[in-house]
Amino acid sequence: MQSNTKLKKGLTCWFTGLSGSGKTTVTFALAKKIQEKYPNIKIEILDGDEIRENLCKDLSFSKEDRMINIQRIAFLAGKISKHGVLVLVPVIAPYQEARDKARALSENFCEIYVKASIEEVTKRDVKGLYKKALSGEIKNFTGISDPYEEPKNPDLIINTEKETLDESVEKVLNFLSTNSYLNL
Amino acid sequence: MQSNTKLKKGLTCWFTGLSGSGKTTVTFALAKKIQEKYPNIKIEILDGDEIRENLCKDLSFSKEDRMINIQRIAFLAGKISKHGVLVLVPVIAPYQEARDKARALSENFCEIYVKASIEEVTKRDVKGLYKKALSGEIKNFTGISDPYEEPKNPDLIINTEKETLDESVEKVLNFLSTNSYLNL
Repeated sequence: MQSNTKLKKGLTCWFTGLSGSGKTTVTFALAKKIQEKYPNIKIEILDGDEIRENLCKDLSFSKEDRMINIQRIAFLAGKISKHGVLVLVPVIAPYQEARDKARALSENFCEIYVKASIEEVTKRDVKGLYKKALSGEIKNFTGISDPYEEPKNPDLIINTEKETLDESVEKVLNFLSTNSYLNL
Repeated sequence: MQSNTKLKKGLTCWFTGLSGSGKTTVTFALAKKIQEKYPNIKIEILDGDEIRENLCKDLSFSKEDRMINIQRIAFLAGKISKHGVLVLVPVIAPYQEARDKARALSENFCEIYVKASIEEVTKRDVKGLYKKALSGEIKNFTGISDPYEEPKNPDLIINTEKETLDESVEKVLNFLSTNSYLNL
């Protein structure tokens, strides 16, 4: 039996969305669910903070630097997913151009839009960042003082304002199954 | 049957040595030999030029930037090898401190010293770089105008001045087998 029977091919799943939209929450819940059911599937979560520390310490939040940041993460994701790994990337990636370039760096790639309105995420404000962004204490904050370009043609949309966490996770699992990545 | 039966665990093999010592040549010959015999073993070669283009475009050849360069490559290598991949890294990495830090970023790591004297590589000068370095046209060139710290305690030494390419490749294969990475 192959060790990775259930995952038919490596894949990079990019979860794009505003800060506080639920990208990381959905990603970790998804990984947990898959690993409980199919412990042999190889999963890698490319966490924004770990990446910034190890690959992108030099980068600011300017448009140019954000483009480079996404490009480096995408390069890493492509190098891992090509070896049959499900790579989950919960990273804002506010520019469509950067996401399109990221797609080109993986053999298999999907763009999942984790949707929540700016009003909703400002209300949630889990990390207190929106308050700081609104007061001007944090500059270049996506959705407040910096643009967020909604995905033009995402492979999947999950709406964390309308769905429960379980529903969002199920939607992703169904997507992976329907598109022949995962044998559920 | 598992897809990766012959490789018992993922591993990062760092091939350190002077420019022109034969790091890339040995790495590609090794990869070819392994893949011919065991096509299911997953191998990734982290090529210096590809990495510089995608992860390290911003970096110079100063000591500080070289340290960052190695750290980024090592981070990438660790992320790939943890998924059961044999990651081969033919990158000069002239500082012992950087190589020691690189080791810490992979679960399994070996430092292979590709040894050739500065006289020999200057004579080979495959890319014409030593000539330029000696004339001052290229600055910060390892072995000429920049230090190369010989590995203090490498896991393996291959000597490309004294061995044929086949002999060097066999030495690495034996090392991988003896150390229970590879089931030959």
